[in-house]
Amino acid sequence: MIEPRILKGTRDFGPEDMAKRLFMLEKIRSVFERFGYDTIETPVIEYAETLLGKYGEEGSKLVYQFEDHGGRSIALRYDQTVPFARYVAMNYSQLPMPFKRYQISRVWRADKPAKGRYREFYQCDIDIIGTDTPLADAEVAAVIHDVYNELGMPEVVIRVNSRKLMNAILSDVGVSEEHQPRVMQLIDKLDKVDAQTIQTEVAEVAGEEQAEKLFALLMLEGTAEEKLAALEKYDTSEMENMLALAYKFGVPQEQLQFDLTLARGLDYYTGIIYEVVHPELDLGSICGGGRYANLTGMFTKQEFSGVGVAFGFDRTLVAMEELGLLDDVKLNAQVLVTQFDENSTEYSITIMRELQKQGINAELYMEPAKLGKQFKYADRKLIPFVVVAGPDEQKESKATVRDMVSGEQTLAKISEISRIVN
Amino acid sequence: MIEPRILKGTRDFGPEDMAKRLFMLEKIRSVFERFGYDTIETPVIEYAETLLGKYGEEGSKLVYQFEDHGGRSIALRYDQTVPFARYVAMNYSQLPMPFKRYQISRVWRADKPAKGRYREFYQCDIDIIGTDTPLADAEVAAVIHDVYNELGMPEVVIRVNSRKLMNAILSDVGVSEEHQPRVMQLIDKLDKVDAQTIQTEVAEVAGEEQAEKLFALLMLEGTAEEKLAALEKYDTSEMENMLALAYKFGVPQEQLQFDLTLARGLDYYTGIIYEVVHPELDLGSICGGGRYANLTGMFTKQEFSGVGVAFGFDRTLVAMEELGLLDDVKLNAQVLVTQFDENSTEYSITIMRELQKQGINAELYMEPAKLGKQFKYADRKLIPFVVVAGPDEQKESKATVRDMVSGEQTLAKISEISRIVN
Repeated sequence: MIEPRILKGTRDFGPEDMAKRLFMLEKIRSVFERFGYDTIETPVIEYAETLLGKYGEEGSKLVYQFEDHGGRSIALRYDQTVPFARYVAMNYSQLPMPFKRYQISRVWRADKPAKGRYREFYQCDIDIIGTDTPLADAEVAAVIHDVYNELGMPEVVIRVNSRKLMNAILSDVGVSEEHQPRVMQLIDKLDKVDAQTIQTEVAEVAGEEQAEKLFALLMLEGTAEEKLAALEKYDTSEMENMLALAYKFGVPQEQLQFDLTLARGLDYYTGIIYEVVHPELDLGSICGGGRYANLTGMFTKQEFSGVGVAFGFDRTLVAMEELGLLDDVKLNAQVLVTQFDENSTEYSITIMRELQKQGINAELYMEPAKLGKQFKYADRKLIPFVVVAGPDEQKESKATVRDMVSGEQTLAKISEISRIVN
Repeated sequence: MIEPRILKGTRDFGPEDMAKRLFMLEKIRSVFERFGYDTIETPVIEYAETLLGKYGEEGSKLVYQFEDHGGRSIALRYDQTVPFARYVAMNYSQLPMPFKRYQISRVWRADKPAKGRYREFYQCDIDIIGTDTPLADAEVAAVIHDVYNELGMPEVVIRVNSRKLMNAILSDVGVSEEHQPRVMQLIDKLDKVDAQTIQTEVAEVAGEEQAEKLFALLMLEGTAEEKLAALEKYDTSEMENMLALAYKFGVPQEQLQFDLTLARGLDYYTGIIYEVVHPELDLGSICGGGRYANLTGMFTKQEFSGVGVAFGFDRTLVAMEELGLLDDVKLNAQVLVTQFDENSTEYSITIMRELQKQGINAELYMEPAKLGKQFKYADRKLIPFVVVAGPDEQKESKATVRDMVSGEQTLAKISEISRIVN
């Protein structure tokens, strides 16, 4: 006999977990679709050279790789971005441009599992490629806004920054291009480490005066408009255009925070960058992304710039759980139709099918067991209504409907049950 | 530069493919949920010993296996049944019993790709475990009936047979237990090879007289009731009970065909078996399954009998395409709001957001390009309505709505557009 177990860093999702995940997924998808994003799917297994290209030596350690029976080097999808780039490189002549797509699927990392770090998890991305317009940057902010509204978290904050502006500032205060990436990495730590410590570290890399000038700007307080005014010597048009359009989309000014300390690690961002945090929860970034100059460089000479964000599925789920937003999520059956005794099976089937016809998810208990057992089953499946019909009820084409929360019982005609349980 | 390509036997699904797949998926899921089935998800990667157990040497060749960085033997999910059994073995004390679940996810086979045979494909299963009642067998037939009704194929035929009855017949006509599996395999070929040839082959295995007696029964014609009457010397209660209950569920008698020539390969079936075929399409079985005595034997001493079927996702999709049932599937955007010129961006955003508020999936074209280009984009994305609003329309809070199919154009107040495009 084999011990039933699963790999660390992978998860089974039972019916209640899945109900929560699907509830969240449907809401997120509905927003993507509202904005006209369509979805694509790429294979889980691809040629290793396809999936590894971008990550080089460092990344490749985290990619699950193996040789198949034909001696081909295969890997498991590490993220959705590289396969998307590969897909675009293969299909761009057939695609509508700009191309807007969402993708929600699993990825794998040969990583050490830890709290919140999995070997197998979901990514949830949107991208608009084939356009440089700030309208696309603004729309992405609007999608983020709508998603968290839809999920019941209008209080999240969308931090935004401009890579172009940051590069201009860094050069202007005297940080050499060579040192800029390291300085950006240090800035990235400002949400975890105090500013004084980081400023000292920046000074060690780029010089004391440079660090001082830089931090005078980074630490600017006030609204986006006030900060932009204080930065008037720089070209702030990228951020200004994006903000103005995002406001037009209805993203509230207080939700969209222009934050010069937002760095985001990935080198390939070249324009606006985004990060979403919840003001009261200590979860870090629950969504992030930005604009990039060339998505497909690895696969084709055809260049596609774009903008995209990844919604952190698991972290957003944790946020919703902590906020109690998933407490009322139901499983699928709305009604359990019990079997009163061995002779009532047929009548119970009739009731169940009638409810189904009226659009109610109605389940039949499989055996004429003791009613207590059948009620316990309804409890376990979180079924809100139970229907009981014995020979007396059957004579009158009626049944008793029990509200499992209030305990209230109602004797009703079959045709009336759907109204009671809806 | 890396050549963008994918492995043979794997597929990219573009926006239109995905729209069809999601359309079908939603309909199938809605039926599963109507009957109170909940879903679970298990990991794609599991310990190889977990996934291999059942298939032994032969099967293991088709399982993708590799060693991870920690030296663990890992495999990719080969089907959904073994992980489901493993899940039940680990969690049965927490699960409602009988446990009804559906599962729709990808599996992998290290197989030679061919037409309709993939290395990565979807499986779509339902199972009821923890009960022996014929009601469960009948409900599975009802789910099949409802799924194909929902998909627009009420004409499919559900072939059913009873393994218990078949074993009784084989023993009675004198086929030894030792020869029964081989004879069942031969019977399984009756949908591809003519009866006379198969009978000769059975005669070689089991004797001429035995084959003759057997085929006299196999070739019985008539309704289920007539066949059952002709088999009165056998215990036909399993089939009779299932049929009677399935009729109560509303499965039409002419759809449910009792067919003694239905064998289905898998050894582990022990009761009713099912197979769905389309009477006009040459696609073979598009759905199949049956009752089994013990699902979890590999993982625990606790025994769980059950009944389940797998819907062939790809074959059913092919059937729907051949029948023209997927011709009208739309992508997500219902309306494209164009940009008339550089000054109209704001007004276009207003229209788009108003439509979205009213529940319409409305997309904004990203640039004030020539209208012809914007219309072409709508064509490519199969968007049925395009909204154009220049300065004249804006003055009156109006816009022109073009029906992309009929070519009809309507000048309307913004508040009226949602009615026109719905």
